[in-house]
Amino acid sequence: MVIECVPNVSEGRRPEIVAAMADAIRAVDGVRLLDHSSDASHNRSVFTFAGDAAGVERAVLALFERAVADVDLRAHRGEHPRMGAVDVVPFVPIEGVTMAECVALARKVGTAVADRFHVPVFLYEEASSNPARKNLEDIRRGEFEGLAAKMATDGWAPDFGPAAPHPSAGAAVIGARMPLIAYNINLDTNRLDVAKKIAAAIRHSSGGYRFVKAMGIALEQRGIVQVSMNLTNYEKTPIFRVFETVKREAERYGVAVLESEIVGLVPSAALNAAAEFYLQMTGFNADQVLENKLRTGK
Amino acid sequence: MVIECVPNVSEGRRPEIVAAMADAIRAVDGVRLLDHSSDASHNRSVFTFAGDAAGVERAVLALFERAVADVDLRAHRGEHPRMGAVDVVPFVPIEGVTMAECVALARKVGTAVADRFHVPVFLYEEASSNPARKNLEDIRRGEFEGLAAKMATDGWAPDFGPAAPHPSAGAAVIGARMPLIAYNINLDTNRLDVAKKIAAAIRHSSGGYRFVKAMGIALEQRGIVQVSMNLTNYEKTPIFRVFETVKREAERYGVAVLESEIVGLVPSAALNAAAEFYLQMTGFNADQVLENKLRTGK
Repeated sequence: MVIECVPNVSEGRRPEIVAAMADAIRAVDGVRLLDHSSDASHNRSVFTFAGDAAGVERAVLALFERAVADVDLRAHRGEHPRMGAVDVVPFVPIEGVTMAECVALARKVGTAVADRFHVPVFLYEEASSNPARKNLEDIRRGEFEGLAAKMATDGWAPDFGPAAPHPSAGAAVIGARMPLIAYNINLDTNRLDVAKKIAAAIRHSSGGYRFVKAMGIALEQRGIVQVSMNLTNYEKTPIFRVFETVKREAERYGVAVLESEIVGLVPSAALNAAAEFYLQMTGFNADQVLENKLRTGK
Repeated sequence: MVIECVPNVSEGRRPEIVAAMADAIRAVDGVRLLDHSSDASHNRSVFTFAGDAAGVERAVLALFERAVADVDLRAHRGEHPRMGAVDVVPFVPIEGVTMAECVALARKVGTAVADRFHVPVFLYEEASSNPARKNLEDIRRGEFEGLAAKMATDGWAPDFGPAAPHPSAGAAVIGARMPLIAYNINLDTNRLDVAKKIAAAIRHSSGGYRFVKAMGIALEQRGIVQVSMNLTNYEKTPIFRVFETVKREAERYGVAVLESEIVGLVPSAALNAAAEFYLQMTGFNADQVLENKLRTGK
């Protein structure tokens, strides 16, 4: 069983504090720290680790222990919205585990965080108990500074823990979601309006595909534009369909696709689905991938 | 380090003998038996296992021990050409290992087989010591029945072991090669001539791509035809290029591609290359595949 966990922590300027957090995760048995990166202007760090349910639970608690001790949101400044020392904790099903099991884990870890650290916990995305509290942005609106007032209003009692924010660590948002793919398509033009129009056509919020977030931006040094996207469910809105739609929309303006890129990690199933689509493959299944067979072989 | 080994054994009719061979491989530490299948009309079985160099060496020797004891080529009949009890042993580099290391392993295992079982060994493919003895078909021509005479002629002394065949076990061909992908493209027509013409256009032997073997066959029950292929080096002749060429050649006859299929195993890199091609991906590398990262993570 492999669950990925990608906690975001409100500390991106003190390398020694971030390193201690990384070490705390590395020290946990049954978990592998895959990546971590900090952004000073955001004053925020993102950790990526993976393991079984018991392992990722221990690692999240170890991370909370460090963050609650070392991060004080009353003194925290940064460009990125935040409301907790450990701000967001998503659990992501990767292999041999269902979304339902990741939701159960989010509830279990949320309870433990509330009990042990007296930090209120809001469940989000697939773990959400309430449609008004499914999107991270809705939960976090008002940020740490507005949190005490927000939690005092109707409908904003936390899922677990005290009814008011932790004085220095705020509140945490914990949940489960599909792997997120950061995917960009570069267009062979400098016309920003074209990238913006295509982004609007493709993204969910303005009528496009359900699991696409998109914006059009200029890559000024290269003199081209980009449709910059997050694909939030590659099974239901696959990469190849997004690519083909962007390409077709670009044609409408006489613009060619120059290239596309995946930023960071991508599940192999998302790439295999593209190969299956374009090669018109029939009867393919993941057990035919040699590397999968090597891991699960009889 | 992962090396795949796909030995072909001249026994496909006595299930208990084949099962004993499979058990002998399974009993070896550091090796995983991924698959085995037998064909009664060929009177032949194919085993697929993987492990590190020391593991696959032990497994090959364990397989020879069973096959030399249980298979007598003097009494062997079957449709498939063969010259040895263990007929062919290819080592295939999969991960963390070079082709040169697989060639060295072929030489080491060949020496051990000759020493321990008094079976002459011919090296083939990447391990070949002689351009006239690179192709399996050239080495095996004349089969077991013609082997003694062939080995007595100039240029047919074995690479290792005795100058004459083993009385019951013949000779073995051992070597190293790239993973082989069995890949078929089905055409939306019953015109066998079209499949045959496309096969001729695409295969190496008649002027096509260097690492493609192809033939046109009829799928009579479905009333369609198939271009049936082996891709012998997916890095140098990638799946997507073969697919696009077959599609284009079929258009020439007004025929559409119905579907394609991979039979058996495929390295993930071969599928990723198709995704990269069609999605026009830039800067992609295998470390971005989540599952790879999980195995190699820091």
